[in-house]
Amino acid sequence: MKQNRTVYLKMKTLEEARDIVLNHFALTDPWPQEIIAVSEAVGRVLAKPVYARLSAPHFHAAAMDGIAVAAADTFGANEAQPKRLKIGNDAFWVNTGHVLPNQCDAVVMVENLNPVDDNTMEIESPAFPWQHVRKIGEDIVATELLFPQNHRITPYCLGALISGGIFSLTVKKRPNLIIIPTGSELVDWQQVGEIDLEPGKVLDANSYVLRSLSEAAGAEACRHKSLMDDLPTLTDTLDQVARSNIDIILTVGGSSAGSEDYSKDVIENLGEILVHGVTIMPGKPVLIGKINNKPFFGIPGYPVSAIIAFEQFVLPLINQYLGQPTVDRESVTVEPTRKIASRLGLEEFVRVKIGQVGEHMVATPLPRGAGSITSLTEADGIIRVPNHVEGLKDSDDVRAELLRPRSAIRNTLVAVGSHDNTLDVLADQLKAQTTTVTLSSSHVGSMGGLMAVKKGVCHLAGSHLLDTQDGSYNVSYVKKYLPRMDVRLVNLVFREQGFIVPKGNPKQIKSIADLCRSDVRFINRQGGSGTRILLDYRLEQSGIDPNDVSGYDMEEFTHMSVAVAVLSDTVDVGLGIHAAAKALDLDFIPVVTEQYDLIIPQEHFTSEPMQMLLDTINSDLFKKRVVALGGYSTEKTGTIIL
Amino acid sequence: MKQNRTVYLKMKTLEEARDIVLNHFALTDPWPQEIIAVSEAVGRVLAKPVYARLSAPHFHAAAMDGIAVAAADTFGANEAQPKRLKIGNDAFWVNTGHVLPNQCDAVVMVENLNPVDDNTMEIESPAFPWQHVRKIGEDIVATELLFPQNHRITPYCLGALISGGIFSLTVKKRPNLIIIPTGSELVDWQQVGEIDLEPGKVLDANSYVLRSLSEAAGAEACRHKSLMDDLPTLTDTLDQVARSNIDIILTVGGSSAGSEDYSKDVIENLGEILVHGVTIMPGKPVLIGKINNKPFFGIPGYPVSAIIAFEQFVLPLINQYLGQPTVDRESVTVEPTRKIASRLGLEEFVRVKIGQVGEHMVATPLPRGAGSITSLTEADGIIRVPNHVEGLKDSDDVRAELLRPRSAIRNTLVAVGSHDNTLDVLADQLKAQTTTVTLSSSHVGSMGGLMAVKKGVCHLAGSHLLDTQDGSYNVSYVKKYLPRMDVRLVNLVFREQGFIVPKGNPKQIKSIADLCRSDVRFINRQGGSGTRILLDYRLEQSGIDPNDVSGYDMEEFTHMSVAVAVLSDTVDVGLGIHAAAKALDLDFIPVVTEQYDLIIPQEHFTSEPMQMLLDTINSDLFKKRVVALGGYSTEKTGTIIL
Repeated sequence: MKQNRTVYLKMKTLEEARDIVLNHFALTDPWPQEIIAVSEAVGRVLAKPVYARLSAPHFHAAAMDGIAVAAADTFGANEAQPKRLKIGNDAFWVNTGHVLPNQCDAVVMVENLNPVDDNTMEIESPAFPWQHVRKIGEDIVATELLFPQNHRITPYCLGALISGGIFSLTVKKRPNLIIIPTGSELVDWQQVGEIDLEPGKVLDANSYVLRSLSEAAGAEACRHKSLMDDLPTLTDTLDQVARSNIDIILTVGGSSAGSEDYSKDVIENLGEILVHGVTIMPGKPVLIGKINNKPFFGIPGYPVSAIIAFEQFVLPLINQYLGQPTVDRESVTVEPTRKIASRLGLEEFVRVKIGQVGEHMVATPLPRGAGSITSLTEADGIIRVPNHVEGLKDSDDVRAELLRPRSAIRNTLVAVGSHDNTLDVLADQLKAQTTTVTLSSSHVGSMGGLMAVKKGVCHLAGSHLLDTQDGSYNVSYVKKYLPRMDVRLVNLVFREQGFIVPKGNPKQIKSIADLCRSDVRFINRQGGSGTRILLDYRLEQSGIDPNDVSGYDMEEFTHMSVAVAVLSDTVDVGLGIHAAAKALDLDFIPVVTEQYDLIIPQEHFTSEPMQMLLDTINSDLFKKRVVALGGYSTEKTGTIIL
Repeated sequence: MKQNRTVYLKMKTLEEARDIVLNHFALTDPWPQEIIAVSEAVGRVLAKPVYARLSAPHFHAAAMDGIAVAAADTFGANEAQPKRLKIGNDAFWVNTGHVLPNQCDAVVMVENLNPVDDNTMEIESPAFPWQHVRKIGEDIVATELLFPQNHRITPYCLGALISGGIFSLTVKKRPNLIIIPTGSELVDWQQVGEIDLEPGKVLDANSYVLRSLSEAAGAEACRHKSLMDDLPTLTDTLDQVARSNIDIILTVGGSSAGSEDYSKDVIENLGEILVHGVTIMPGKPVLIGKINNKPFFGIPGYPVSAIIAFEQFVLPLINQYLGQPTVDRESVTVEPTRKIASRLGLEEFVRVKIGQVGEHMVATPLPRGAGSITSLTEADGIIRVPNHVEGLKDSDDVRAELLRPRSAIRNTLVAVGSHDNTLDVLADQLKAQTTTVTLSSSHVGSMGGLMAVKKGVCHLAGSHLLDTQDGSYNVSYVKKYLPRMDVRLVNLVFREQGFIVPKGNPKQIKSIADLCRSDVRFINRQGGSGTRILLDYRLEQSGIDPNDVSGYDMEEFTHMSVAVAVLSDTVDVGLGIHAAAKALDLDFIPVVTEQYDLIIPQEHFTSEPMQMLLDTINSDLFKKRVVALGGYSTEKTGTIIL
């Protein structure tokens, strides 16, 4: 198993690799076409220019309700000497859209008629020729170009097409794309009845994501059933697929350097490898080649790698086949909230949350791992750190490509600080009460939140900082660290912190004193976190020397990581919130009730989105949902403390 | 027929009318829900928050290929004193994604192993705990909020949903919308075999446009067959529809003030009118009401009115039902290329072409009529002229909402000037040869183009200005009107101008002298047009006094309008290009071959898009297509004259 491991030799840059794809698969003949009904055309791409076959209007049409006349008959009419016109003789009732009767070239509006009798109308001013008439071809002239080839049809276009007498269209066929998930570990969700997934098994999500992205790009995409890591099966399948009517072949998950990844061997046998490894991250192990002269992409299996590889290589190829430009996303200048390190020689795609805080567009980096799909679903944008740059400083102004519209970003409240599950409930409840405002949270601990407020990179910060002098929360910290800032402090909840222990509490941990037992392994939280301050306070109160706590030096950064450490039997106990224990079905021993507040700079406090947030916090529905979580009290929820 | 005409009393402003819609149809109960498979979820809106049911990863997983170890076993390893690990004993081969064996908490990469024998590996540095391991819940923790209610699912979301163990979703039902085209003049394209449309008949295009727009907004839209203007039928149909499972009812075409428009009466009988007439243009006659407490919209029949009424009133209601914000389009600051007059008291939606010319975003207004669907399909943006403003000056900086992405606008070459059909061919051929560059033409005559170049509001101008002193084209005009500008002159084509006459040439017009015949009615082109200059030159050459030409004072602005005047027997002859005659199946008598050039400021001449345009002009394919049009010579096409 340990032999034959691939090393990425001769990796290509993003531009080199994309050029190879686009040049190698440049079309020599026109892309296949098909004829479809106009009613099915939205989203499709014209294979030929479309010329109008009918004019619109295709007759001289009245543009107002009134009488049609020959303009010449009305010349000379004025208030002193009105002209009389006989209905049916030299004047004809018409409504908007009616055909202008022969000899008529103008319409007099009904408002400008003085009826003399049922059949006689008087007018006091002349009509000029073509007044209130839509002439033949005023909008569309038969034979004129309606849309050029390669034009993508929008809903508006249907109006021009149908009016121009175009009922069927020659469009480019959708490229046929197949997505073959590979990996013995893969399981399809349709085969998983209840949530009953063995360790080592992974749900195939990538093929669904890529199918949707392909369809959005105008391709016809189908998923193959997932294949085991088995060379003959993979070879047979790819060989068969390459002989079918498929235009683009994708495997997903088989191109990392793992010994079970056979894609490379198969392509070498069946066709040719064009690119193996690109200097991008995520997405580095992408494999590009051809089988039976058809483009093949070995898409890496980590979800972010898969999406980036698809968007950087497959999407431009689909666009090339369809004659469409690959449009750069809109971008904005942002200020990173912290340093972004990056490896020299790799172009990194850093997913960021973006918020408009005062005059600044601030960007908070999300987890960097290629395995973190939520780093993409939560992202507002992507910062590209180029190959030749080692990292970005937080003072640099950098560009971020936008994944969400600017207006959505403008209406996002940026929370940075300690995490608490009630923030999830708050985000959801806010979405229920307003369609426009979004709450976006980054978790950096209470002190991190305080510093973010100080730097002006957030609208609010969640904080539970205990003053070990007097047992109060947050107020003294705000006064100490934000002395010159006008900030408000609003209580969100009171919550229980306690010991997270394995189900059944096998070590029978009951109080802080148990932490010094020699048979108890503890896991700590990072310095600066509210929970760490709380622990240190409690240890001191109980007269316990931290050196006596086994594991005091091991630090985790979130409640959830602590719970995970307990679950995986690496430790016996950690300090955290009730919700974290509940999430992993662990036991929880309450130790203390603490105060969790929101720090809000006054300049943001009165904004409309913030007031909506505060309304939501004060709503009964929110409080009810928080209580239902367990481990919370909402007695002072919404109270303005400072 | 002339009685009972509706006058729009108490018209509402756009904001008033929209507030009435959104308040009147505010939801009291949650919008209906349905459960769908995750694979069908893209584009749908969550009715409930979604919490992860599985963690991702749901086991500790190797993040690298190598050996899994207990970190503690490796402590102390260094180059001088490497540690040996036995495969199967204290080290286990793992590939990326594999379950970490029990007792292991780190992975040593294969690159860092020195094989001693098949079963023994040596390492020269220690592993730290959790090195190269993806821990349980690193990306998603079971029970955490994945997406809040009212979140619209994107392709990326599928990744998080499936990985989080979410295989079905509770989403909001798509609102059911019905579109009923009304008007005895309407014909469905499916019933029109060949192009055989009687005068007075109109193809129903609106219902297809509105259906597509509704679907794009997330509604389930169906078209009703079109209804004659008949009160009982309309009443019955609306009554029935209002009792069905339809959520939103639209009629199209029945709410202008025409005497055959019954919508208002029907709504008054069956339900209640909320708004009749809104101070917007196009879209003014929109009718809003309710039947059986269901929202009813009487959408005006002109295509631009229909779209604007839909987007301003129906779309926000669909969004409200689905809990979605109605997002403003991105907008940019533009400089109008000419004054935009507007009626006080009406908010006007002016469709504009937008181009980036040097530092300026210039906006050229398109036809204003509500009947001009092409004014929307050709538009890059919309300028709103507010109620209280009488018009915009060309020096005003104004905002335009964008209908196309900025990048597409940046890659658009703006041509302003004389129109020629070869520009259509050029636009199409350019689209075939490059996916990124677009040619956009506005037709204001040759002198208008020259002035546009002078004002710096275009990249190029088509021109065929005859110097009556020496018979040359364009050069002397450029020198006279653009003395301080560095411009190039490139020949596009030579073309025939001649007399456009009815089929069969009933008046037997053969030469310029025939224009003075008393039985011949002529139609002229506007002053400043190349064709007008040509005519005047020819009249002078032939010693004809313009006063002797009947119709010399009647002016049209395009070749096509001249042809239309001939077709409709308003005149007997006009001067124009071959293509215009051919378009309307009229006869053509060649009079002169003229030179049609492109004026291109040097600053734009060398740009990449312009060079692509020039390449296209020089291509054989372009020349071949031009010759096929008839009436053109491409002998000097592409020649740089100046």
